[in-house]
Amino acid sequence: MAKQEISLFVIRRLPRYHRVLDELASKKIDRVSSQELSRQMGMTASQIRQDLNCFGGFGKQGYGYNVRALRDQIGRILGIQDHRRTILVGLGDLGRTIANHVCFPECGCELIGLFDSNPFITGKDIEGMQVHHTDTLPGFCHQEHPELAILCVPDNSVQSIAEQLALLGIHAFWNFCHDDIHFDNPDILVENVYLADSLLMLTYGIRNRSLSAEPDH
Amino acid sequence: MAKQEISLFVIRRLPRYHRVLDELASKKIDRVSSQELSRQMGMTASQIRQDLNCFGGFGKQGYGYNVRALRDQIGRILGIQDHRRTILVGLGDLGRTIANHVCFPECGCELIGLFDSNPFITGKDIEGMQVHHTDTLPGFCHQEHPELAILCVPDNSVQSIAEQLALLGIHAFWNFCHDDIHFDNPDILVENVYLADSLLMLTYGIRNRSLSAEPDH
Repeated sequence: MAKQEISLFVIRRLPRYHRVLDELASKKIDRVSSQELSRQMGMTASQIRQDLNCFGGFGKQGYGYNVRALRDQIGRILGIQDHRRTILVGLGDLGRTIANHVCFPECGCELIGLFDSNPFITGKDIEGMQVHHTDTLPGFCHQEHPELAILCVPDNSVQSIAEQLALLGIHAFWNFCHDDIHFDNPDILVENVYLADSLLMLTYGIRNRSLSAEPDH
Repeated sequence: MAKQEISLFVIRRLPRYHRVLDELASKKIDRVSSQELSRQMGMTASQIRQDLNCFGGFGKQGYGYNVRALRDQIGRILGIQDHRRTILVGLGDLGRTIANHVCFPECGCELIGLFDSNPFITGKDIEGMQVHHTDTLPGFCHQEHPELAILCVPDNSVQSIAEQLALLGIHAFWNFCHDDIHFDNPDILVENVYLADSLLMLTYGIRNRSLSAEPDH
């Protein structure tokens, strides 16, 4: 099946497959059964086989999957070997944490520029790079052609900054603001990050566990 | 259908429904059709109806859903009205950002304690709370009974810290370290956060867009 035809649900699981396989490879494990992957992924073995069949897979009856081959294949599909030129806008505490904490090369990205509009932040050195003023973005984009922008700006300005960057040729946005960004143009890619969603899964889990522990009534 | 029987896939979408409905409510919109929700959620209208039917829904043919009633119902299922006593361990830049950036009451949580083992960090004031030494965790947990811990500690120590906290009665973990935590006890809830996964979705998207734009060969 061509890459373009793999369902988005499968695609969204690929980073997790990659992580689990990479961990197995780092433990010098050469092959893994769909049963073992199923345990590690928290999915059924049949779902695993169905997912991996989507892109040719590497499974053999009674042998399992070749860990490194499968990891590398998934990495290639995701584009981990790429060097997407990436800028980060907004170097408050959140932006600085993202700059420090995310391993960009493992995500196929190269961080090439940091921008902020606050004169107390511009000129500072973060992760070996100087923070430039957002006023310099047009010139920078014209010269350096970044493809991806990480947005850690104030919530109420994020849509207008994203639109300005889209006009400057950036067509992929990783948005950490509470406010979503939207584009009518389907070619512009947006990932709005919702940290709180996974915390809510815990709140739900605690509540549900307490309810289950109560006697029936 | 009882809450306990709603599929995990539907549950994982509930925070997104809640967010979209809350945004509609804040715009004073009283009712919404499954078609409109479908547009905002990026899912089919039939999937939306199926999801919302799981917990009774509020949809009426030709009328749509009552926005606030549905939002409140989803909020109750998630436990947004709860005050789960929460501690945060590890107040490096990541921990501080989480403490500052996450709106805990909107997630049914109340942050009641901050802990670090670094003497340069303990004693500091963050978000109006003093950071205590991790050595004081046993006494604190005994007195205050926190239910949930956020872990922003060094990667290689996260599993042992989580196990120590589990022995102190904490059975829900929001883990920001690169290393996963695992428990054999299914009653212990874990959400390992993988920020990079959504960045990889952009890398994949850029790659796939470029491939689609190439002529067939």
